[in-house]
Amino acid sequence: MELTDAPAVWLRDNCPCALCRDPRNGQKLFQITDLPAEPVIASTRELPGGSGTEVIWAPDGHRSVYAPGRPGQDTAATGDGRTEADKETWVAADLAGRVPEATWAEYLADRAERERVLADVARLGFALLRDVPRRPGQVLDVAASFGFVRETNYGELFDVRVEPDPNNLAFTGARITPHTDNPYRDPVPTLQLLHCLTNAAAGGDSGLVDGFRAAALLRAENPEAFEVLTRTPVPFRFADAHTALRADRPLIDVDARGRIREIRFNNRSIGTLRLPAGELTAFYAAYRAFGELLQRPGLQLDFRLTPGDCLIFDNTRLLHARTAFAESGARHLQGTYADLDGLFSTLSVLRRQRPLDDLAALFAGQGAEQYLGEEVTQAQHMLQAAALAEADGASPALIAAGLLHDIGHFHSTVSGEDLMAGTDNRHSHTGADLLARWFGPEVTEPVRLHVAAKRYLCAVEPEYFGRLSAASVHTLEVQGGPMTGAEADAFAANPYARDAVALRRWDDRAKDAATVAPGFEHWRAMLAGLLRTDVA
Amino acid sequence: MELTDAPAVWLRDNCPCALCRDPRNGQKLFQITDLPAEPVIASTRELPGGSGTEVIWAPDGHRSVYAPGRPGQDTAATGDGRTEADKETWVAADLAGRVPEATWAEYLADRAERERVLADVARLGFALLRDVPRRPGQVLDVAASFGFVRETNYGELFDVRVEPDPNNLAFTGARITPHTDNPYRDPVPTLQLLHCLTNAAAGGDSGLVDGFRAAALLRAENPEAFEVLTRTPVPFRFADAHTALRADRPLIDVDARGRIREIRFNNRSIGTLRLPAGELTAFYAAYRAFGELLQRPGLQLDFRLTPGDCLIFDNTRLLHARTAFAESGARHLQGTYADLDGLFSTLSVLRRQRPLDDLAALFAGQGAEQYLGEEVTQAQHMLQAAALAEADGASPALIAAGLLHDIGHFHSTVSGEDLMAGTDNRHSHTGADLLARWFGPEVTEPVRLHVAAKRYLCAVEPEYFGRLSAASVHTLEVQGGPMTGAEADAFAANPYARDAVALRRWDDRAKDAATVAPGFEHWRAMLAGLLRTDVA
Repeated sequence: MELTDAPAVWLRDNCPCALCRDPRNGQKLFQITDLPAEPVIASTRELPGGSGTEVIWAPDGHRSVYAPGRPGQDTAATGDGRTEADKETWVAADLAGRVPEATWAEYLADRAERERVLADVARLGFALLRDVPRRPGQVLDVAASFGFVRETNYGELFDVRVEPDPNNLAFTGARITPHTDNPYRDPVPTLQLLHCLTNAAAGGDSGLVDGFRAAALLRAENPEAFEVLTRTPVPFRFADAHTALRADRPLIDVDARGRIREIRFNNRSIGTLRLPAGELTAFYAAYRAFGELLQRPGLQLDFRLTPGDCLIFDNTRLLHARTAFAESGARHLQGTYADLDGLFSTLSVLRRQRPLDDLAALFAGQGAEQYLGEEVTQAQHMLQAAALAEADGASPALIAAGLLHDIGHFHSTVSGEDLMAGTDNRHSHTGADLLARWFGPEVTEPVRLHVAAKRYLCAVEPEYFGRLSAASVHTLEVQGGPMTGAEADAFAANPYARDAVALRRWDDRAKDAATVAPGFEHWRAMLAGLLRTDVA
Repeated sequence: MELTDAPAVWLRDNCPCALCRDPRNGQKLFQITDLPAEPVIASTRELPGGSGTEVIWAPDGHRSVYAPGRPGQDTAATGDGRTEADKETWVAADLAGRVPEATWAEYLADRAERERVLADVARLGFALLRDVPRRPGQVLDVAASFGFVRETNYGELFDVRVEPDPNNLAFTGARITPHTDNPYRDPVPTLQLLHCLTNAAAGGDSGLVDGFRAAALLRAENPEAFEVLTRTPVPFRFADAHTALRADRPLIDVDARGRIREIRFNNRSIGTLRLPAGELTAFYAAYRAFGELLQRPGLQLDFRLTPGDCLIFDNTRLLHARTAFAESGARHLQGTYADLDGLFSTLSVLRRQRPLDDLAALFAGQGAEQYLGEEVTQAQHMLQAAALAEADGASPALIAAGLLHDIGHFHSTVSGEDLMAGTDNRHSHTGADLLARWFGPEVTEPVRLHVAAKRYLCAVEPEYFGRLSAASVHTLEVQGGPMTGAEADAFAANPYARDAVALRRWDDRAKDAATVAPGFEHWRAMLAGLLRTDVA
């Protein structure tokens, strides 16, 4: 949506200024009722250099500055990832040869692998971790690797094996047909983990059915049945000596837009429906139709858990099943529940960290090349600048600025060689603009100003010029030479001038061929903590 | 609904037989698709003595026996307690002088008080526990008293006080207008607890608004706005260095029947809506209307938390607020999240235990009276029977049968005195029928048979009659005298005959004026574990 097409109240509600949003946490500082009843745009103006659009509001004179691009936070139009709109639904054949899996060791060691596994749970509804240590209680560590355990009446952790006095069929050797767990809870646990410690019994194979696909099939084939199941609250119940749970929820829940969002299917725990006879008849017909569809050949993915496997699956979407097993045989799983919101959060944070992988690759690739006319590589130069900043007690943001200050050399269309040949590549600006996608101004602005800081220091510190390396002297002229007095005054008024000058001094010293500074990985966790949080 | 009016498939789905429901846990043992496509009633028959209705099914010949009363589990038609249909909504004046509260000590000590407090949270949306020890971490114990803590990115427990680098406005001294917490989580934590450790700062008063009442007012006054808010998913967001949460949920969520079920209202964390301009305009008008309504004078209940107070409130319904406070002042709350399903479960289990209070009162009241012609009171007689059963290693159910075997004397319209005067009060049957409302057949049937067991033993053990007390000899004749051979054979064939005979022998010995058996409270926990779980 173009800024001028947007309803004024929406635009005003998305004002990014520090009076409207707490710069510390991005939370809005006003209530909807604090806005004028009908905010009106008094004037708009494009800011110089394409840096955004200024809006002055009537009647209160509030000033908003919107960055280029679509206004507001970067919220995708598709949704929060939880409805059918954001899923890849499947039947068993779709996953032939590509069941989502990873080893526990890879998952732990590699950010990209963790992201892939969690993305598979989000997109396909499940993933299988292999070679998870067969230690009792380990399943809680798997859950903690991406979220929070949801304790229930079955405990933080439950043992799935034959029990002498079971309060649930899960704790017998009986066959269990496809179902979702804990439908009698509201909120239902949205994730389940099952960790296989032993599986030597005859039988006890596992199965998964994509309930979203099945519900979509029902909608296509029998829209009336689908409709009935979405609007009939079903009384799910569970009771034992210590527990009496009940939740009235539909078998197929849709969101406010009618998109499939949650499946509950568990005949074992459906209590007695109390409805007029006509509604009962319609419900039972629809319930049977869905039940038959869930058993349709080809839907269910069959597999066998082997010791060390840990299955993570979406309990709002996938139905799970197992074949009967001999109660005399050794079969022992440990399970726990967790929630999708925590998993999605971890996934988003991992995605947010992707640029760090890109930066690491740059340091290892282009960064290993010689730094224009100096005796160190470009990467070593920046690593030394970061180390010097740290040694001087700089803030993490300013250390990061030191680490990344010459990143513009890598990505610019005008290369560093061009700069040496007499064309300014404006690498401080291209670097800062690149970094602004991932970091806030406390990182980007010292980078942006670090060339200007050289011109500034040449103007205000007569002895500074004498300390510049030959290459720096060479590039100074291309970059504009020492500042005039007026330029220097303007520079000093910039709120980031002080940081830029500090950065500049580390920059000048970070060219020691005899020093080896800590590598990029040393800084990864610090950089992760500085990444912008206001992008999706 | 009369049994014959019910749709056949519904009736069949609610068959209570041991083939259809696991007697150990009440779970259904078949899938909907295991039933005949169109089950038909082949025949029905009323069983002798009004004990139920037998149905024989075609085509499979399955036999169901339905107990008298409405068939199926006792599921109320109203719902699971979570929608407006099951709430008492309020404005501040409604609660004048009756803010739901209890002391922590009373709450811990008294089942009825715990039930009342949790019922207030269910019905009114909140309760205030007073004099909760001001120990850091105590709030987790309060949550554990009725449910399970829900851990979030704020931890298991969070400190509400001024933080140097807050990731949330809650951790500043700012005024916070009425809102619900964590709307960016799905599932949202459905309960919040706030425990006041210190509140010496100027300001920092608390407020609660009933969001269900406000939403109902909006529906009445501005149905279009209500409708818009129920069908517009709002992208709630929260992000910091470790977290990136998003949930697209409406401000007012209704259940499958259109009843208000969940409110999310938190302007601080609403991200950028991406909708066509017309929908944005309609949404913002409705959002403002709801926001204005929530601030309407009279809705908000104002109070001040004092040290030791712990507020428990429904985060799907109540909005909470606080006035600004001086950041220099000492104000420290500890909070945690939990879930309503656990609280409702605990409430149901407490309600299930009400009959134990009634039984305790009977033991203390009528039970203190003299036992018909014996040297012990009725209560002491039954307590001795229980103690003898325990000493002989009887099961909890059979100990309970011993404890309660003469309960029919209390409640019968024909009193024990009538029995002594020559009219059989059939106290074993009335007692068993009374107990059947709360206990299973393993408790009730030995009670039912304990008089028959006397007649049986007189028939099969010649020396037994000689050991009877004078009063027992007297009542034997009224009760029918020794059994005939055929009667004795029939008795012995009853699956509970063995337990009834054991009970009878403890009954006969439990008349020792020199013994004082443990009192009723000694057995309360054991009885609680035996209560039927298949009633609401």
